[in-house]
Amino acid sequence: MEKKENFVEQITSRDEDFSQWYTDICLKAELSDYSSVKGCMVVRPLGTALWENITKVVDDRLKATGHQNVMMPLLIPERLLLKEAEHVEGFAPEVAWVTAGGDTELSERLAIRPTSEVLFCEHFQKIIHSYRDLPVLYNQWVSVMRWEKTTRPFLRTTEFFWQEGHTCHVDYEDADREALEILDMYVDVCENILAIPVVSGVKSESEKFAGAVKTYTNETLMYDGKALQITTSHHLGDNFGKAFNINYLDKNGDSKFVNTTSWAITTRAIGGMIMVHSDDRGLVLPPRIAPVQVNIVPISQHQEGVLDKAYELKEQLSQDVTVQVDASDKKPGWKFSESEMRGFPIRIEIGPRDIAEQTLVVVRRDTLEKTTIKWDDQLNENIKALLDDIHNNMFNVAKERQDKRTRTATTKEEFAKMIEEGGFVIAPWSGDLAVEEQIKEETGATSRCLSFENVDADLTGVKDLWNGQDAKYLMHWAKAY
Amino acid sequence: MEKKENFVEQITSRDEDFSQWYTDICLKAELSDYSSVKGCMVVRPLGTALWENITKVVDDRLKATGHQNVMMPLLIPERLLLKEAEHVEGFAPEVAWVTAGGDTELSERLAIRPTSEVLFCEHFQKIIHSYRDLPVLYNQWVSVMRWEKTTRPFLRTTEFFWQEGHTCHVDYEDADREALEILDMYVDVCENILAIPVVSGVKSESEKFAGAVKTYTNETLMYDGKALQITTSHHLGDNFGKAFNINYLDKNGDSKFVNTTSWAITTRAIGGMIMVHSDDRGLVLPPRIAPVQVNIVPISQHQEGVLDKAYELKEQLSQDVTVQVDASDKKPGWKFSESEMRGFPIRIEIGPRDIAEQTLVVVRRDTLEKTTIKWDDQLNENIKALLDDIHNNMFNVAKERQDKRTRTATTKEEFAKMIEEGGFVIAPWSGDLAVEEQIKEETGATSRCLSFENVDADLTGVKDLWNGQDAKYLMHWAKAY
Repeated sequence: MEKKENFVEQITSRDEDFSQWYTDICLKAELSDYSSVKGCMVVRPLGTALWENITKVVDDRLKATGHQNVMMPLLIPERLLLKEAEHVEGFAPEVAWVTAGGDTELSERLAIRPTSEVLFCEHFQKIIHSYRDLPVLYNQWVSVMRWEKTTRPFLRTTEFFWQEGHTCHVDYEDADREALEILDMYVDVCENILAIPVVSGVKSESEKFAGAVKTYTNETLMYDGKALQITTSHHLGDNFGKAFNINYLDKNGDSKFVNTTSWAITTRAIGGMIMVHSDDRGLVLPPRIAPVQVNIVPISQHQEGVLDKAYELKEQLSQDVTVQVDASDKKPGWKFSESEMRGFPIRIEIGPRDIAEQTLVVVRRDTLEKTTIKWDDQLNENIKALLDDIHNNMFNVAKERQDKRTRTATTKEEFAKMIEEGGFVIAPWSGDLAVEEQIKEETGATSRCLSFENVDADLTGVKDLWNGQDAKYLMHWAKAY
Repeated sequence: MEKKENFVEQITSRDEDFSQWYTDICLKAELSDYSSVKGCMVVRPLGTALWENITKVVDDRLKATGHQNVMMPLLIPERLLLKEAEHVEGFAPEVAWVTAGGDTELSERLAIRPTSEVLFCEHFQKIIHSYRDLPVLYNQWVSVMRWEKTTRPFLRTTEFFWQEGHTCHVDYEDADREALEILDMYVDVCENILAIPVVSGVKSESEKFAGAVKTYTNETLMYDGKALQITTSHHLGDNFGKAFNINYLDKNGDSKFVNTTSWAITTRAIGGMIMVHSDDRGLVLPPRIAPVQVNIVPISQHQEGVLDKAYELKEQLSQDVTVQVDASDKKPGWKFSESEMRGFPIRIEIGPRDIAEQTLVVVRRDTLEKTTIKWDDQLNENIKALLDDIHNNMFNVAKERQDKRTRTATTKEEFAKMIEEGGFVIAPWSGDLAVEEQIKEETGATSRCLSFENVDADLTGVKDLWNGQDAKYLMHWAKAY
């Protein structure tokens, strides 16, 4: 039995069984595979290439704004993790513990980092002394581990990959500026690179990060109407500064605690990308992150000159885009299906007739639209323009769907019905945590964010739909991943 | 107390106390710091930037030769690790064990990967079916963990960073070709990028990797005369293929086991770089890997126009080299010392007089030679040529030292004396493992490799210096890190 024969099997329809469709895509587009450690995935070459491209995009932006990468240890001594009370309370239930090294029992348990605030803080305490040392803008690219009960590839895995930024600032305002600038950077990456529209805002008290004073978030809707928190940026105030005694002398010689931030984008973004863009033929990759932007499929490739021309075309295109030739032994129809399954934004077919007429058949993955274009000096410019057009179309389709599925509820019953139907539901809330808990129990929805758009909404006379008290926040609610 | 005031303290002389000198460099050049987990280091921005540059250099070469990156899980179930007998015997004593997830005791212990052969093999077994699937050329960039008793930054740490390549091949010969091509790639990186001369060859039976049939190695001498194994490439034969049942159908429809290889370059290379090139003023970075190749120090920077000119110079140079302006508040002399401590290959001083005369003062880090050059259209070419010259000089200095300290012993007594004096000692060996053990006990030396140069040496009539038996191998021996 040869594996390749199973490659382009029919996958489950996303409208029939979204969850199975998602798993099918991950496996059959060869993004990931299962491993023998529960909840940990093997990220295959295509998935890894996607993550490397996200890494490059984010890393370039971080370096351009003065951030520096470091590499912190994988393990955290238990006593270090215990230093910030809220933080440890949030993470302790999901920590993997190392208790032996070789044949020796350890005298103190070591946590595999679920996140590295405490390691950074221990280091910051040693290297920060004066206001001249601030801000410190650090980041690292690593994997972290959280012992999850239910896992799904990319979306929620015991081990996942991320960058975690950790910064120290002279005061609350400067840390807030940083946290917001990073959130904006993530908006840019989501919308202009991943073609995923987001709603930016602030988390409620109960949904914020363990140890944060404020959690900023970018939320987005999946095809099935559930929300995904795709990136977050936390203002940690001086909670960690105090817990780890990170102080500095200000210009007047007074000792102050630093304010810190932390923020992340994770392999979860790949899960979001799949669930926003892909379809029943497989993956649909946003052009600006696709490891292969143009896949050339030769037709009648055994005829003399065809492969040569295909490689000549590759040579020309590779000056401007990432391109490959599929010169494998399979039939063209098979290659088309594979190309669709793997989500390459553009497929170009080139056969004897095209060569004779100096034309190319171009098929875009998002709409599957097929056109014949001239192979001339303008080709590279035309292909680049088409990639931009695909990006814009993918973003617009997602944005229109998200806007259409963002509705405002005016009664409790309407709210429940809208949540059931899927999408974001905007509803006024008093801020009462009991209401939030009740909504979760009754409808399965959680508060996603108070969007920046609604921060200054006039709520005069508006009441919380559940307890009738004065509304303070016009929140986005949804069922979420 | 402000940290910066301690920055350029005198460091220990490398001729007086090499070990302390090394530690001083790591800490004071701000390459690394200690963490609260014994043996795990914090890699600071300069150390991380070095590792990122090594990553880029090696990753580009791997991708150009058809290798693909993947990301395997951090953890290995105990039963998986037990599958290849020699392998587990080699690694079990130094494995960190995870025994609890959250509040739950695990039913099976999980090892933090000391290396990932078994994870790759489990995956290979699933994805390889036909000769058409071969070769599979995979690699990953991760950290691994080995519970070491004595650790030193970069050289030997409990957690270290590396790439680990894992490949599958149709037969022994193709795997051997791969293992050797990778070794050559490492030679290229060591010599042409890190300016470190190496001796390439094969390890003895006792020194080879746990589970390998053959271990190829690149060995190099440190300034103190001890050897460092800087990169290795292992031919694993079909040991893992059989243990993990990785078989495929060949062209005739017969079932065969794959042959596999694995190979790595690690953060240890940074340790080697320090110990080969640096001096009593601090780090000396090889130009092709230096995160900052040119450090511009403005003189009288508060005088009008000086900083503007320094940034104009940066702008011009940055088209061809990586360059920064040190515009901090410190005095120039202080900046010079910092620049030397951090090992930037070229320092350019620019002050009012230089600006008036359109000249620049250029100081190279390797020789500390100072020259005045014209700031004209030829500047970038001249600076690039100077960087090449620095690279060549650093390589030549290291090569001459290594050649001078590579000697051939003709008696047991001479061998012991030469080992005591440091450097490589070439001596004929029968291959008797008892002799190897005896040499280690008596002199502290280990067999480093049978160099490719000496593989075909005529050993007619030559005897093992210790047991008088016929010599089979003309080995390199040395005390080693």
